[in-house]
Formats: sequence, C-alpha cells, structure tokens
Amino acid sequence: MFWAIQNRSGLTGSGRQTQEIDMNQSNHSKHRPLKVAVVGATGAVGKTLLTCFEQRNFPIATLVPLASGRSAGSSVRFRDADVAVAEATPDSFAGVDIAFFAATGSLSKSLAPEAVARGAVVIDKSDSWRMDDQVPLVVPEINASALDDHHGIVACPNCTTIGVVMALEPIRRAAGLERVVITTLQAVSGAGLPGLEELEQQNQAWTEGRPASVSQFAAPIAHNVVPVCGDFLTVPGIDGVYSSEELKLRGETRKILALPGLDVSMTCIRVPVEVGHCATVLIETATPLAIREARRSLADFPGVRLIDDPQQAPTPREVAGSDEVWVGRVREDLSGSRIWLWEVSDNLRKGAATNAVQIAEEMMKRGLLDSRD
Amino acid sequence: MFWAIQNRSGLTGSGRQTQEIDMNQSNHSKHRPLKVAVVGATGAVGKTLLTCFEQRNFPIATLVPLASGRSAGSSVRFRDADVAVAEATPDSFAGVDIAFFAATGSLSKSLAPEAVARGAVVIDKSDSWRMDDQVPLVVPEINASALDDHHGIVACPNCTTIGVVMALEPIRRAAGLERVVITTLQAVSGAGLPGLEELEQQNQAWTEGRPASVSQFAAPIAHNVVPVCGDFLTVPGIDGVYSSEELKLRGETRKILALPGLDVSMTCIRVPVEVGHCATVLIETATPLAIREARRSLADFPGVRLIDDPQQAPTPREVAGSDEVWVGRVREDLSGSRIWLWEVSDNLRKGAATNAVQIAEEMMKRGLLDSRD
Repeated sequence: MFWAIQNRSGLTGSGRQTQEIDMNQSNHSKHRPLKVAVVGATGAVGKTLLTCFEQRNFPIATLVPLASGRSAGSSVRFRDADVAVAEATPDSFAGVDIAFFAATGSLSKSLAPEAVARGAVVIDKSDSWRMDDQVPLVVPEINASALDDHHGIVACPNCTTIGVVMALEPIRRAAGLERVVITTLQAVSGAGLPGLEELEQQNQAWTEGRPASVSQFAAPIAHNVVPVCGDFLTVPGIDGVYSSEELKLRGETRKILALPGLDVSMTCIRVPVEVGHCATVLIETATPLAIREARRSLADFPGVRLIDDPQQAPTPREVAGSDEVWVGRVREDLSGSRIWLWEVSDNLRKGAATNAVQIAEEMMKRGLLDSRD
Repeated sequence: MFWAIQNRSGLTGSGRQTQEIDMNQSNHSKHRPLKVAVVGATGAVGKTLLTCFEQRNFPIATLVPLASGRSAGSSVRFRDADVAVAEATPDSFAGVDIAFFAATGSLSKSLAPEAVARGAVVIDKSDSWRMDDQVPLVVPEINASALDDHHGIVACPNCTTIGVVMALEPIRRAAGLERVVITTLQAVSGAGLPGLEELEQQNQAWTEGRPASVSQFAAPIAHNVVPVCGDFLTVPGIDGVYSSEELKLRGETRKILALPGLDVSMTCIRVPVEVGHCATVLIETATPLAIREARRSLADFPGVRLIDDPQQAPTPREVAGSDEVWVGRVREDLSGSRIWLWEVSDNLRKGAATNAVQIAEEMMKRGLLDSRD
C-alpha cells in the first residue's frame, strides 16, 4: 500500500504529521472543542467537509480522517497540516464526539451503529439511513427540530433533494403545496471523484477523436446528457422503472417537508457539468399565491438567494462554491395557477458538506452533543 | 470579398464549378426534376439540407445556393461538385420551384414573399411565418393535410417543437391530450454554427484555464447549463417573463396538433451538447391510457423509434445523425394517472432539414408543386 503522507510545510517528523491533529483554539462558538471523525475523508464530499470545517471555524480539537481500506494510508490537508488517513474500523470511533460519514452506503450501514455504540453522534451523507423512521432527515433551515428526536444517527438528504426542498419550503410556508413536477440536471460530482474523473477523461477522448470509456454512468456523459441517475428500481403497482435518484428525491422531499402524501413527479438527468445540481420545478400550491409573494417568501428564507431580476438566471458555473441555494426564473405558469422556478445549488457544499456541518452546529446549539461534557 | 469556390475534384474550369449545378438524373420519384434554392446554404441547417437532398435522392435539376451578403461568395459541396453561393435577392428566385429558407427571420420575412411572387413554393425554417393563419405549420407525419391549404409559404416548426409533437401525437391519437409539462435540454447547434463554435472555443478556454468569451448564449455554456433559450418576452396578464423558445414550443405545439386550448407548461434549457435536443414530457391524457398502449402507439408511429427496454434510454450522442425521434423511459407517473417520457431528436435533421425535405416530398405527392408543369 502506498502511503502518501505529505508534510507541505517541509517539517518532517513534526507532531502535525500524526494521524490525529490537535486544535485547541476555535472562535466558532462557546462549545467545547470536539473530536471529529470523517469517514470518506479522501472523497469529493469528504474533502469539501474539511474545507467547510475551516471556513466555518468548526470547533475541532482532534480530526480523525478515515476511509475504506483502499484509501487508507493517504493523507488529507487540514489547517496547514497533512493528516494521515486511517482505515475505518469500529474502534476508530473511540472517544469521537461526531462522526461525519461521507462514504458508501454499505460502509455507513456497518459502521454507523458502531460509532453510535461508542458514544458518537453520526451525521450520515449516504442513503442508508434516510428513510429510517428512527433517523431524522434534516435540512436545518427547514426541520431542525427533528434533531431533538435523534437516536445517534442523523441523515443528511440527497444532494438533489436539498436544493429542491430549500426552494419548496418558502412556498409551502406561504401557501401550502399540492403538487410538484421536477426535472433535475445533475453534475457528475454527484458520483464523487470517479464521476469527475470520467467526465475529464471523456472530454479528452472527444478532443482526440477517441471513443469514450464508460463506467460511472449509463452512457458517455461528455458532450451528452444521460436521463439516468443511479440504478433502476421497480415500484409496486407502477408500470415502468424509476432511477434510484428519482425515488430518493420523492421520498426524501416528503419526509423532510412532513408531507407524506405530496404529489411529486420527477425525472433526473445527468449533465456534463462538474459541480452544481439544477432543477426545473413546477409547483401547485394549496391556496393561491401571487408571484410577488412567492418571490418575497424565497428572498426572506435563510439559505436561499433569490435572483429577482426575471431576465437573469443562475447557472452551475457561478453557483459552484456557494453555500446558498440560488433560485431564479420565478414566474407564473401560463395556466395562471401554478408557479415555475429554477434552482441551482452546489451539490458538494449545501447539497452535502455544508448541510452536514450545519446539522452539527444546530445540534451543538440545541445541547444535543453535550452527553460527554 | 473572398471567393472560396473550390473544386475538390481537381478539375478547374469545369461546368461543375458554376453557380448552378445541373442534375438531370434522379431516382427519387416520378416527379420532374426541380430547380431548388436554399437560402442560408452555408449555415448548420443549410449544410444538413444538402446532405438530406443527397441521401434522399431529392429530384433536383438545378441547385441555387443563396446566403446573406456576408456569406455570399463562398461555395457549398453538393453531389461531388462545388457550387458557388450567391447573395439572396428577389431575382434569385426566378424560375425556382422550391425555395428552402434556413436563414434569419428577417431575411425570410423580406424574401419569402418575393420568392412566392416569382412562382416558388417557400419552405421556411425561420420563426417568421409559423404562427401566421395563412401559413401551414407542418410535421408531415402529423398534419400533412394542412399543406393543401398553402398560399405559397409553408413553415417548418422549431427544432424543439418537432421532437416534442412527434412524441405527443401518438399519445393524442390513443387517448387525447389534456395537459403537458415539458423541460427541454437543447444542443448548441440550435443556435447554428456560431453556437457550435462558441461551445468549442469555451471548452478550449476551460482546458487552458482561461475565462469564457460569451456572445451566443446568456452565460458560458461549456461545463454549464443555461436556463435561457432565445430572448425573454413578456406575456400579457402573466407575472414573469418567458424565453422566446418556450413561447414557440407552446404556440407551435398547439397549432400543429390543432389543440388551441392545450395546457402546455415548459422550461427550455441550453446544455453543452453539440447536436440533439431532448425533453422530459409529463402527459395527462383526456381518457385513461395504459402504459403498454402508450408504448404501442409510439412504436407504431412513423418516424418515432421507441426504446422499449425500460432500462435503456436514448441520448443525444447516439441520436445525432438519425432522422427519427427517439422516445424512451415511457413510464407511469407515480400518481398512477399520468405518463412520463423522454424524447431525443437530431435538431438539425428531423428538427430542421429532414422535416423540411419531407414537407417538399409530401407536396410533390399531393401534386402541390405541379403548377409549372
């Protein structure tokens, strides 16, 4: 196994090169500094988590970067030091306050209960726990109070779902929701670093006139769009198959909004964009809602950036790197009774890492991480 | 002005190098060979028209390639010869049987009546005449009989509209249409050669780390998606603005299907794909329609290629070059009462050139080009 520990400061053998890094200073909050594990620290979401910790001054005393056996032995950069990545095992979580899981569903399924058994709170980005009745599925701006009922694991929604529900919730609060029709356009980083690498390699092949090598997606994604995200699944009583991403979007939207009967119709499409998921959303409200009121609700909602100029619309290239969900093209449907909008969010940040860190911050604020105090 | 006449056969000074090319042989049909003008012969659609003429053995005695003053003086390749492109003027249409217009709306607006006045039938690809009550708007598989009422100009629908109505018409025939919700993903060649060039240049700039130079679209299109196609327009009584492409899609769909009250909701998006427009379409039929019946209707409809395997779906990269409209992911909406489908078509072929040539073929079959005989 190749051990890629690097010390970019040039100081070999310093204490900053150990597997765990001590940080006793934080101006983030009054909360005591925490021992924080990140499972999947070398992946696209894991790396973004580390960036979010730094940018938000998250109160970390000790960082424990973990990964599957394949990636263990490499290192990650955190607060100007290289930190070695260990293989995630049950004992990795000894003394850990919070474990962020940004890894495969199967790793989460097996290890999250082990982390909880050792006293950690798990904030999980996989799809393993989201629809579990015992697990809160949380977007803090929308349903933070669901955290109060946690049993050790809190689920972070799918990256596509988060952007969509952030755009729906302000409308729901203003006039209720009856029905939504959604088409998503999803970036390749929704499939992690392998998705990013596949797009880059296929773009290179296109330029050189070579055929595309396909492994991450159902068809070549460079210079193309592919109307499949994830695997196909059957739905009892329904003629036809749905992609796993589509069923997540529907089920998670209903759970987060606590609207189990909401009529959600959707098609999910992969597009050759590096970062930034988009959606067209057609909304039927429960009671009539003027467009100016819809715009005001969106503008006032924390975490939403409304592009209020009707002739402007956000795109993934400009939204990448932002923690906000950008909403534009808010307009009356030509039927006169529905609302169209266009939503873009950074799938690695608000769609994943930022939302996970916000969950942790909200749990601190609610005193839900104080059991070890 | 640079005259780019080339004779790739190496025979300089031959008769094949003149502005008009004589072709007396055609095995296309019993119809007499025609004198055919192409306005916009050097553009993306114009070039595809010439390819379609060759591939379909369209009975051309004399080809008259025309363009705006800017492009006049270049040449086009047709049936193994280079044919000089002249500037389109009213007198260009003397003796012409059919004039295909694949140029700007303003050129069509000014010159199409001149061509008709000189006895030509005009088949126009611009948006200048489509919604004119005196002008049939035709997709031959759907409403060929509308050609019988022509007054000299026949309009070819928007490239996005053609794919969508080809997917809707089989469903309409089976169960009627009540309402459709459409999100389109449109290739850059919908904006012609300048659109293709802009994507290529921006891809190159991305690779080299340079900023994108933007002129054809509302934002950089490389590594991005842009939810604006065309210009923004206001709609009386509606709060918000719609792109010209969206309003074309709605208005033309209603006219072609002869359903002036059809409830059409739509968002049109530009994607970084060279050729091939796509759409997600959610359909509410007037009477219940089982999915297997919807699939059968689509499979039986001329010009539609149904991908019947629910786990397969067509993508623009494989559809480019095809004259058919490919439909996949036909499935029951989870509400149990609506139908989803995914449609892809080559916007330069069935979306433009092929449909225009089909219109001409249908007019020959109906004896509508016989006035000069």
